[in-house]
Amino acid sequence: MRHRDTTAKSSPAVAPAIPATAQDRCGPPALDFARARERIRDLIWRTPVLPVETPAGQVALKLESLQRTGSFKVRGAANRILKLDRAERRRGIVAASSGNHGRAVAEVARHIGIAATVCVPDWADPLKLRGIEEAAATLVFCGDSYDAAEERAATLATSRGLTLIHPFDDPDVIEGQGTIALELLQQVPNLEELLVPLSGGGLVAGVGLAAKAAGVRVVAVSARRASVMVQSIDAGKPVQLPDEETVASALSGGIGLDNRLTFDIVKEVAAEHVIVEEDEIRRAVAWCFHRHRLVVEGGGAVGIAALRSGYRPAGCAATIVSGGNVDPAALTALVD
Amino acid sequence: MRHRDTTAKSSPAVAPAIPATAQDRCGPPALDFARARERIRDLIWRTPVLPVETPAGQVALKLESLQRTGSFKVRGAANRILKLDRAERRRGIVAASSGNHGRAVAEVARHIGIAATVCVPDWADPLKLRGIEEAAATLVFCGDSYDAAEERAATLATSRGLTLIHPFDDPDVIEGQGTIALELLQQVPNLEELLVPLSGGGLVAGVGLAAKAAGVRVVAVSARRASVMVQSIDAGKPVQLPDEETVASALSGGIGLDNRLTFDIVKEVAAEHVIVEEDEIRRAVAWCFHRHRLVVEGGGAVGIAALRSGYRPAGCAATIVSGGNVDPAALTALVD
Repeated sequence: MRHRDTTAKSSPAVAPAIPATAQDRCGPPALDFARARERIRDLIWRTPVLPVETPAGQVALKLESLQRTGSFKVRGAANRILKLDRAERRRGIVAASSGNHGRAVAEVARHIGIAATVCVPDWADPLKLRGIEEAAATLVFCGDSYDAAEERAATLATSRGLTLIHPFDDPDVIEGQGTIALELLQQVPNLEELLVPLSGGGLVAGVGLAAKAAGVRVVAVSARRASVMVQSIDAGKPVQLPDEETVASALSGGIGLDNRLTFDIVKEVAAEHVIVEEDEIRRAVAWCFHRHRLVVEGGGAVGIAALRSGYRPAGCAATIVSGGNVDPAALTALVD
Repeated sequence: MRHRDTTAKSSPAVAPAIPATAQDRCGPPALDFARARERIRDLIWRTPVLPVETPAGQVALKLESLQRTGSFKVRGAANRILKLDRAERRRGIVAASSGNHGRAVAEVARHIGIAATVCVPDWADPLKLRGIEEAAATLVFCGDSYDAAEERAATLATSRGLTLIHPFDDPDVIEGQGTIALELLQQVPNLEELLVPLSGGGLVAGVGLAAKAAGVRVVAVSARRASVMVQSIDAGKPVQLPDEETVASALSGGIGLDNRLTFDIVKEVAAEHVIVEEDEIRRAVAWCFHRHRLVVEGGGAVGIAALRSGYRPAGCAATIVSGGNVDPAALTALVD
């Protein structure tokens, strides 16, 4: 595990706002997490919080692994899709995904009765693919890389007039993910620090803006083999890296060289970055299963991995367990 | 699935009390669930509630499967053991268990620093046995039947002066289990009906007394192959039956021909009895895993099995998911 503190002291409570750097690129979309929460209320569940003992003391787990569709992704997808106008709904939507975003998009589309196409890499988890199929979305396999799935989705959007639902770099998606922080602040009112899994940055951006505004210190946790965002921040601009195989496959995929929002927002809201290794993630998944009867996928367990591998939060802490979509056989192989 | 309504209408709100028939046998132990909750606060977790969609409509799952030690049993065990005096603590405790009660007793004993011996049948789940060993209790294997484990525990109690911690037929244990109802009534204030797994009756007795007093209709759910209590109530007195192998092994074991409390209390508090079959339980376990990333053992899933097999509750309903201690390999075999 490696970690870095990017701020000398915790941030004061301020109203959540897109940082100026990001606003410059896309105009100033005013995020309203409370309104998003109202909007998506019928499509998501208020996920439970479980207090557990870790080497870093008692920590609250926000169990988005028990969320409808098995991950937090349904929050952002629902918020984005529910804002589509009638013509856009009629034409249908398309998404690229390693699984969780696709499953979320498919489920929301099914629920409101619009057509969805999901482009996936061939290595996507079978359980997630089954979820997408069961929601009656069209599944398009795009070969070995996530980038190929992304390109295919963009092509389909243009050629068929479908609306592309981006997995993270979209203000509505970010706004939807931020609703987790609102719930959590009610469930753990004295929260001081929050560990959030980091991949493309939609979760860290949304939750980070809402939590930081409430005076909570936000720590972003990346898997070493899916740490494009951290490496981009180190480089001072979005970089591209080849996909690496990782037990945290949900965190794989680039952030986009033309990243509009999440690069700047994550830089702004994350007080510290922690990076965890494959074996630390694997042990966290096994611990969740054996100690707490929790089914957590690798990508959902990075916060726990950090807390069990030497990271020590300051004060009352929580971490978001972001997803639980893992095949029974894969889980058994992992936890044995 | 079979069910029977034992009352024509729902019961009025009354103060929780041991029924007169049970009081006659053991004196009138006044149960104080609120005080029990205070007593065991540091040893148990407030378990989360998850709303899910079932064929019977939306139902709240009270996830005692996520409880410390993996089942609700730690509540009753903690309440009983914390009431021991200094001399009793010094001499140590003994319990018979198919696993969950033993794990709970071992964990509480470890926590307060007293010696525990747990007598188990050879077929107890390996995961539960590991939990007992990790809590540093002495494990005694007693052959094929649960009754043999019970006899051995009674013998050890007499010969070594150990205090026997009964898994269900004890007012302190019943009082401890009842604390679930207090939590649940705060989490689901408009609760109208509660489905509770039934075995020896400690859970139904405790939760039933507390819930019925709050005007909630209590439905007891048994596994067909572990339905001694229902058959005893049918017979008008406690009966003995041979152990049958069941996927709900946590519900196995007799209620005792000399049952002091739970037979009468269950008769009094359960407005209806539902019995579920092996394949219904198996499907409920698989549904929990695939749909909700929940690790639930067979015995913990009988309420869900009832709701997915035709039983229809009246009004806002919840069920207690009583345990989640299942070996990864056993779980995979079950859900595939």
